[in-house]
Amino acid sequence: MVPNKQTIEDAHKRIANYVIRTPILRSAALDGIAGCKLIFKCENLQEIGAFKARGAMNAALLLRADDKTKGIATHSSGNHAQAVARAAKILGIKAYIVMPNNSSEIKRKGVKELGGEIFLCQPTQEAREQSLKDVIQRTGAAEIHPFNNYNVIAGQATVAKELLEDTSGLDVIIAPVGGGGLLSGTALTAKYFSPGLDVIGAEPQGADDAFRSMKSGKIERTDPNSIADGLLTSLGEKTFDIIRKEVKEIITATDKEIIEAMRLVWERLKIIVEPSAAVPLAVVFNSREKFLGKRVGIIFSGGNIDLDRACQLFSQS
Amino acid sequence: MVPNKQTIEDAHKRIANYVIRTPILRSAALDGIAGCKLIFKCENLQEIGAFKARGAMNAALLLRADDKTKGIATHSSGNHAQAVARAAKILGIKAYIVMPNNSSEIKRKGVKELGGEIFLCQPTQEAREQSLKDVIQRTGAAEIHPFNNYNVIAGQATVAKELLEDTSGLDVIIAPVGGGGLLSGTALTAKYFSPGLDVIGAEPQGADDAFRSMKSGKIERTDPNSIADGLLTSLGEKTFDIIRKEVKEIITATDKEIIEAMRLVWERLKIIVEPSAAVPLAVVFNSREKFLGKRVGIIFSGGNIDLDRACQLFSQS
Repeated sequence: MVPNKQTIEDAHKRIANYVIRTPILRSAALDGIAGCKLIFKCENLQEIGAFKARGAMNAALLLRADDKTKGIATHSSGNHAQAVARAAKILGIKAYIVMPNNSSEIKRKGVKELGGEIFLCQPTQEAREQSLKDVIQRTGAAEIHPFNNYNVIAGQATVAKELLEDTSGLDVIIAPVGGGGLLSGTALTAKYFSPGLDVIGAEPQGADDAFRSMKSGKIERTDPNSIADGLLTSLGEKTFDIIRKEVKEIITATDKEIIEAMRLVWERLKIIVEPSAAVPLAVVFNSREKFLGKRVGIIFSGGNIDLDRACQLFSQS
Repeated sequence: MVPNKQTIEDAHKRIANYVIRTPILRSAALDGIAGCKLIFKCENLQEIGAFKARGAMNAALLLRADDKTKGIATHSSGNHAQAVARAAKILGIKAYIVMPNNSSEIKRKGVKELGGEIFLCQPTQEAREQSLKDVIQRTGAAEIHPFNNYNVIAGQATVAKELLEDTSGLDVIIAPVGGGGLLSGTALTAKYFSPGLDVIGAEPQGADDAFRSMKSGKIERTDPNSIADGLLTSLGEKTFDIIRKEVKEIITATDKEIIEAMRLVWERLKIIVEPSAAVPLAVVFNSREKFLGKRVGIIFSGGNIDLDRACQLFSQS
């Protein structure tokens, strides 16, 4: 069932002891550049460095006792992999993570450090799904999908809930959109806890499937090409359905704009955000007139980027 | 007068509306590496990117009305310059900042953005002091010394006060030491608000004047050579007097250790700290056995480092 007000409140209580209530930061300098008031919710400072810790934890806690015993499984090359491994570790159960064989060493290391068991596969959507199916058949583990799962969506919805509790008078919240778990959760929170508040999705131009899906009214696929590696997936049916109804619009940003926004965050806010997390701020800058004078909530989704890679991006920009 | 419990409480109330109550962060991964519980107080996320905003604000607010009208002045190549300019801006008075002519463009820009008036001088201690004297004689501005000033020390003492309020059961707090404003303030807060709590100073090996001063019992000078550019000054009489009595010991770290600690903070905590701010963590790692199993408060003093410079340091390490 699509999460409602109670579901989101319950999710928030359920995960409270397992995730960080991340801080909110402000910057007069960035406000000056943007021409609006920016309120930053820092999920890059969340456990495992991303909001994904919330949804995976909520979904894992909601599994029935006998479903849990055989462990949990997912396929992911990124932050959700670590989120599932961490949830399993907390619950004392096994985590089986299918990862493409081109996923970075640092991400595999993160999963291993959390005790997750990794299954490498070819880096195609089909291979990932087939491998996951095989693993589940063999182990009996329960799947936790990275976004097309209402319990995951309810968990991600708690990010915006905290933002609304810790600030006031927001006109709009901007969240990045990949598979749509964070954006759909944010939109539901706005609907139930702050009716009238606009929610906007921010997407890389090189993976603008959500932007096109909103136009066409059906889920569009993408052949993604962007440095925002957390946002390369297409929407799922569950997330698209919510986003179509509750999200005002999707705005895209180029990779150049994303890197510039990322650099500004590092320099001015003194925090590390990954490219995917910088897309909402890039959107504020490239659509300046839309946000002039408003109070704009920005969700920094994560901070998982290899430092050498980041330095390379900055030196080229 | 050396700040007492009441002075520090008053300072905290006085500056509360002008500075950020910075967040505290934890990292299970860093705890694992260090073998102790680390509680990080993030003054890198403070206004102007450093704790210096506190002391300058407290000192400026404490000036008598007629002393304030002619403005405030200091000499500084770093974070204190911006702190004084910001305090003046808030109070609607002038700030006169003497800066060595080899200070970085980015730091001058920071002062200018805050409306401070810059006077460049030769990069020697004598030239800086003489230039400041000239400026004060000409303008009638009140000097706010970066550390050898009890009102500044009381302001810096509020960092540890918040840390003690927001966590419990600390065994030790480690603060970096340059001129000693932060370390002496931290030691006074420990003395008044948590008697028995150890305070340790962390200093770059290449500028170990405080370490040597503690041994010799008098203020030692230094010919500093370290990447921790915020910690190159010697102690003042006021700070040394407090530190000698209230600080348990000074531990030094090499530049290599400082850069390694800095990289770990960026990678694991997803925040940007400058080299000076990473010295306490470097000390935890190089003196591991001293802190095993303890609850260790770490003050991250600031986050002002040029990104290109940081990338250069990381690539060489």
